Amino acid sequence: MIEDVARAVTELRAARPLVQCLTNKVVPQITADALLAAGATPAMVDTSEEAAAFAAVTDAVLINVGTVTSDAAQAMRSAAEVADRRGIGWVLDPVAVGVLGFRTRFARDLLASRPTVIRGNASEILALSGDGQGGRGVDATDAVDAAVTSAAALARASGAVVAVSGSRDLIVATGRPPLFLESGHEMMQWVIGTGCALGALVAAYTKVCADPVLAALAAHAHAGAAGTLAGRAAPAPGSFSTAWLDALYLADEQTIRDIIQLHILDSVEPAGPGPRTQR
Amino acid sequence: MIEDVARAVTELRAARPLVQCLTNKVVPQITADALLAAGATPAMVDTSEEAAAFAAVTDAVLINVGTVTSDAAQAMRSAAEVADRRGIGWVLDPVAVGVLGFRTRFARDLLASRPTVIRGNASEILALSGDGQGGRGVDATDAVDAAVTSAAALARASGAVVAVSGSRDLIVATGRPPLFLESGHEMMQWVIGTGCALGALVAAYTKVCADPVLAALAAHAHAGAAGTLAGRAAPAPGSFSTAWLDALYLADEQTIRDIIQLHILDSVEPAGPGPRTQR
Amino acid sequence: MIEDVARAVTELRAARPLVQCLTNKVVPQITADALLAAGATPAMVDTSEEAAAFAAVTDAVLINVGTVTSDAAQAMRSAAEVADRRGIGWVLDPVAVGVLGFRTRFARDLLASRPTVIRGNASEILALSGDGQGGRGVDATDAVDAAVTSAAALARASGAVVAVSGSRDLIVATGRPPLFLESGHEMMQWVIGTGCALGALVAAYTKVCADPVLAALAAHAHAGAAGTLAGRAAPAPGSFSTAWLDALYLADEQTIRDIIQLHILDSVEPAGPGPRTQR
Repeated sequence: MIEDVARAVTELRAARPLVQCLTNKVVPQITADALLAAGATPAMVDTSEEAAAFAAVTDAVLINVGTVTSDAAQAMRSAAEVADRRGIGWVLDPVAVGVLGFRTRFARDLLASRPTVIRGNASEILALSGDGQGGRGVDATDAVDAAVTSAAALARASGAVVAVSGSRDLIVATGRPPLFLESGHEMMQWVIGTGCALGALVAAYTKVCADPVLAALAAHAHAGAAGTLAGRAAPAPGSFSTAWLDALYLADEQTIRDIIQLHILDSVEPAGPGPRTQR
Repeated sequence: MIEDVARAVTELRAARPLVQCLTNKVVPQITADALLAAGATPAMVDTSEEAAAFAAVTDAVLINVGTVTSDAAQAMRSAAEVADRRGIGWVLDPVAVGVLGFRTRFARDLLASRPTVIRGNASEILALSGDGQGGRGVDATDAVDAAVTSAAALARASGAVVAVSGSRDLIVATGRPPLFLESGHEMMQWVIGTGCALGALVAAYTKVCADPVLAALAAHAHAGAAGTLAGRAAPAPGSFSTAWLDALYLADEQTIRDIIQLHILDSVEPAGPGPRTQR
Repeated sequence: MIEDVARAVTELRAARPLVQCLTNKVVPQITADALLAAGATPAMVDTSEEAAAFAAVTDAVLINVGTVTSDAAQAMRSAAEVADRRGIGWVLDPVAVGVLGFRTRFARDLLASRPTVIRGNASEILALSGDGQGGRGVDATDAVDAAVTSAAALARASGAVVAVSGSRDLIVATGRPPLFLESGHEMMQWVIGTGCALGALVAAYTKVCADPVLAALAAHAHAGAAGTLAGRAAPAPGSFSTAWLDALYLADEQTIRDIIQLHILDSVEPAGPGPRTQR
């Protein structure tokens, strides 16, 4: 599976998928820069005037509810519907869901449009699955390891692959063994937007990976390996941010193979409402 | 007092205060990155749908009127009211007040919610106090030294600590001697958002400094010392910006002690409507 | 003419023109930083509440339709009208025109306010002139060389100087020989906002260059020479972005002379509806 992940990096650069981003107002620049550096093509078309029309031609869609308004919600809803109807990959990033009622209700509504991948931190995934109260602002207060059961329940309820980012990343899909990915660097928490940009990278990888588990894994591996490389070069957040964008661009198949570690769980039995046979 | 300022840096990192930022559309990324690098936790929750709800749980609030619309004004007004009612620190940054009527009226209205600290350049402070016409766009055309009297009048009228940023920084509070802080680097003027991020840092420090004069001073000292460090390392604005974020993260108590200089005025008698005994 | 271009850099820094930017939500920070680094003064005053009032006092205006909404369109329309009435330079950047109907109609409407310069990539210029279908998202799918005829038609129809950015830049004005400028670096395509910031630089140069062809040329030369310098220093997009801002600040007349190459076409006969005598 690591071979598939490594190959996906090369395939991304060959395909240069067009990723429509409807994201929060804090991170559009680093999100677009990360997509470009990684090898994809950003298109930040997020207005209610144009979002649905562009969703009809894009390769993938990211929806991030970080600063969602009623008007932005309308644009996001229509883009998600078009993406679902077309069968292209779309990623839901439920930023700070659980902390605030407006975005929590909206993110839950969006599940009706069947996101391909849901990517968040442990607190966001717990809250979206109905098992938690959210974190502290945008920060997780729950550990990734504590999210396995909730992530599995959310995966069953939504049909999505669920990716939980943290000190190690967890990827859960119904009927598949949970995966833990080790990569990245502690400094990624000190730069705004690395998580939001990761959501966009997952969307990009859905274009080149038919299996959405592989798409989620490849994006986390690419972003995480770049984080590991950047952490070797940079002692503090400003230079780390620069080095991370450089490393997204410079990382190749060998970088991925050298850095990431993948653990496949076989003994974890996610609890939840779904019957065993649905797994 | 320099010892209190130095200690505040350590206290900030221990507390990691959650700072809700309602700021302009140009600077959210550098503002969030500066808060993270300095040791605080940014939360850019600024919509009319969610601002008041988040103000009820945050540790401090920044309101920056740089690109304020009627809708954003509503969110800012409600967040300011909640912050005032809860007695948490909130900072008003009156960007380009005086130049444009809409934001000038709005910033004056916000004074009713009793900001803890008002931070601006000399032209903005003169304009907000009713003594000036504003600067040239977002740039000051008035010198910090010329703002002492107006800053004192604004402090008396609003009850806020007034911080005037410039080649040296001035901090004025009713009943306290004016303080001048020497730190920083000329290059800070060549990077967008260093002043706006400073406003957010003042908000962060109100959580760990019971005295708002100390909060303002500690934030200006932290940002200014980081500017001095960055100026030694970087010859031009792109690398300076990166180095400034690095220095916000790396600066410690000793850095602050080594770099900043504090001057306490005792002979300046701010004129204005308030009687001598109010000082 | 290269001497005039080189001198304009020095004149820009002496004048520090105030540039009002109504731009998309992805690039305000890099646009403001690029203006500052180059030597101009950014003012991102773009709300319907304030745009017209600020257009009455600014030195130049940039209008970039990258994420335009109905409300933003109203602000842009009023700022363009004021700029036209005052006779100050204003630049239209038709981002992704052709791809999406809403912005395409809006950008065409704006031509009634007579932009001084229209700056885009080849696909955008083809689409705005009515000869193309637009590119792929924000990327050009047409080559600069294929845009000479359409650019000339657009110049005649609008009265604007038309600048087409690409691997080499094309500048076309009615009655003037087309110019090709060689400078820049391939890496500029890997950083979001270098093209959008270039539009803002063109606006800045209209304040110091009475001839709008010279303004367009000087801005492309400054940005392009900075790109060439940055490409020598930086191997990847993160560090390139930083190095480009540094180089915008550090580039001087000699840098421009050393790096840029200018080709004046004399044999190209732009086709189009306008009679020969209008050239």
